[in-house]
This record gives sequence, structure tokens and C-alpha cells, in this order.
Amino acid sequence: MTIRYPNGQPYLVNDDKKTKKNQPKKKKTGYSNRGMTLEEDLNQTNDYYLLRKIAVIHKKPIPIQVVNVDYPSRSAAKITEAYYKKASTTDYNGIYNGYYIDFEAKETRNKTSFPLKNFHDHQLSHMEACVDQGGICFIVVRFSTLDKVFILDFSVLKKWWDQQFEKNGKKSIPYSVFEKDGYELQYSLAPRLPYLSIVDKLIVNRDL
Amino acid sequence: MTIRYPNGQPYLVNDDKKTKKNQPKKKKTGYSNRGMTLEEDLNQTNDYYLLRKIAVIHKKPIPIQVVNVDYPSRSAAKITEAYYKKASTTDYNGIYNGYYIDFEAKETRNKTSFPLKNFHDHQLSHMEACVDQGGICFIVVRFSTLDKVFILDFSVLKKWWDQQFEKNGKKSIPYSVFEKDGYELQYSLAPRLPYLSIVDKLIVNRDL
Repeated sequence: MTIRYPNGQPYLVNDDKKTKKNQPKKKKTGYSNRGMTLEEDLNQTNDYYLLRKIAVIHKKPIPIQVVNVDYPSRSAAKITEAYYKKASTTDYNGIYNGYYIDFEAKETRNKTSFPLKNFHDHQLSHMEACVDQGGICFIVVRFSTLDKVFILDFSVLKKWWDQQFEKNGKKSIPYSVFEKDGYELQYSLAPRLPYLSIVDKLIVNRDL
Repeated sequence: MTIRYPNGQPYLVNDDKKTKKNQPKKKKTGYSNRGMTLEEDLNQTNDYYLLRKIAVIHKKPIPIQVVNVDYPSRSAAKITEAYYKKASTTDYNGIYNGYYIDFEAKETRNKTSFPLKNFHDHQLSHMEACVDQGGICFIVVRFSTLDKVFILDFSVLKKWWDQQFEKNGKKSIPYSVFEKDGYELQYSLAPRLPYLSIVDKLIVNRDL
């Protein structure tokens, strides 16, 4: 007779467990590439940091221009016409151990470089102004095809942003720059993307 | 013959200008009560601070849940169904001189007190978490009928928030508390609501 748990699963005594050996081995997986977007990874990470009182960092809502709203009786206001607006700042900001944190996260399917057109003027000006006030600003870039995530300090981004307007300026940041001047971010179980360990390094470098 | 400017306005020589004396005197106005909302006042003030590199503080976009989007050919994506979501954080945040700043702004037509129902749990938890990380958190409250604006530090708000759940707790903060434990904010020409002068005081008080 097979003894079963209330959920219907059989209760395995040691002998039964041995049969597991005959089961096909599970493919060893890391924590990466589980089909989540970078945004989902970061939101989960921020939830983790918030819950453990490590930092308070949130993604800002997407800016939307509301044109028309209906007020059906007895129900919530329904927006019937609206348009996406260009963001004037970055996606994420908050506070970590007294430091103002501000960053933008982007994914690319490119394998050899990251196109600078992913950012716009306003965002660079915004990050520059925050750095001037003593903030910690950076970008998180995921090369999704390579399944690699990097953090690049604002100072490096700024250098590459500016050179694009020079003669023969490159329109993208080579992958090698992320490897050399950035910090690779390793996925972990919890938090998914422990980016504050890199932020600690950015803070140390800045205060050197 | 009357000489006229190209726009049709008569050119007044000194003699003509004297006639101005006979015109009714303009009512002397302060800088307050010009029909702008508190949000407009704060946005103008933040623009001023940003332009003069004093601080980088922005109002966050209103959180909206997008349900349906149309993509008409050759034009921008049109959101055709969306709903307002409850904000999980505060309206404004940013950085000032290395300090993380986080606040909520509210207007009331009440004259004797400010109803606590203007805030919700999430916002209080958010501000508390930011204070724990070393942030400067407060509320800006405009009593529009009285045309008075006050800043109340988070610590005072928290005290009043908590007492509402006690037996015989008050559901609002008396106006006298704003006068006694808050800071009145005076309108000026530029910036309209120089709230950072009060923030300086909050920082000094905190670091005492």
C-alpha cells in the first residue's frame, strides 16, 4: 500500500527514494536566463532589498499623457485616450545607506556593442545633474543573447556618449568596454541581481 | 497726430505718461494665491532648482495600468483603455546637496485640520523606510482656503498617523500642529515655494 500525503503525492520512505537514481538527471542550471526580463529581475531585487531594509529603490511609473477619461457610474475612472510620453529622467531611483541612487536599465540583443540610441539627451543631463549633487548614477545593461549583465558607471557612459558627436565617433559602446570598464553582475537566487554589491564598489571608487 | 508703434499702440512721450496717474491704482498683490495649484507651484520651484543646479527633484509620473493599446498606422501608440493605480510611494523625490529628498504634497479646503485619510499606509511605510536609510522625508500641505502652506517633518506626521488607531484617536491633524510643530512656507517670486530653505532646517534638526 502506498501511503500518500494529503495532496495525493506518495510518501516515500528511504527505499523508495533510491528509485530516484534511475530518473533522468536534471540539467544543472544557474540562476540566469529564466526568461524574465531585466525589469522583472530588477523589480524582484528591489523588493528583496526593501523587505530586508537594505535599500528603498523603485521603478518610476511610465509617463503617460492622459487626454480623455470616462467616469462610468459606480466604477473606477476609465482612461479612454492617452499617449506614452518620453521619459525626462531615468527609470529607477531611491536611497541606499544614505546614498541617492539613480539608474537606467536596458536590454539589447546585440552581441558586440550597445547602441547609444537607447538613451536620450534628457537622461544623460539628468544623471549628470544627480552626480553633481552627490548621487550614484549608472546603467544596467543586459546583453540578452549572451546572457550577460553589466553595470557601467555614469562617468564611463558619459565619455562614450560625448565621443559619438566627434568626427568618426562611434554610435555604440563596444562590448569590450563593458568587460574592461564595467562590472559584470552575476545572477543569484535571492536577490536575483545583487547590484548593490557593485554599487558599493562605485561608491568606494568615487570616494577614493 | 499720434505716433504709433508697429503694433498699433500709441507712442507716449513723457507728458502722456503722466495721465497714468489718473488710472486706478493696481491692487497690491503678494506672490501667493494666483490660482495655481500646489503641484504647479512645486513643479515651477523644482524647475528653478534644477536650472540653477541647486537640486534635482521631480514629481513622479502618475501610476497608470494600461489595459489596451492601439497602433494606428503612421502615428503614435494610442492607449484606449487604462486605469489609475494607487501610488505605492510618494509624489516627489530626488537629491539635494547629497541628501535624498522624498515628500508628498497635499491641498485641503479645510480650515481647522488636515484629514489623515489624504495619505495611505503604503506612503507612510515608504517614508519610514526612506528615513531609516538616511533620507529627508516630509509633507507639504496647503490650506487653500487660508492660503497657507506648511511643511511637516515625517516624524510629526508619523506621530499623528499612529495616534488615529488609538482609542479616541483623532482622524486629522489640527491646524495648530502645523503652526506649532511645522514650518510655514512663504511664497516668493522665484522660486515660488522655496521649500529647500525649510529642508535645510529639517537637516539641521535631524543631525543635532
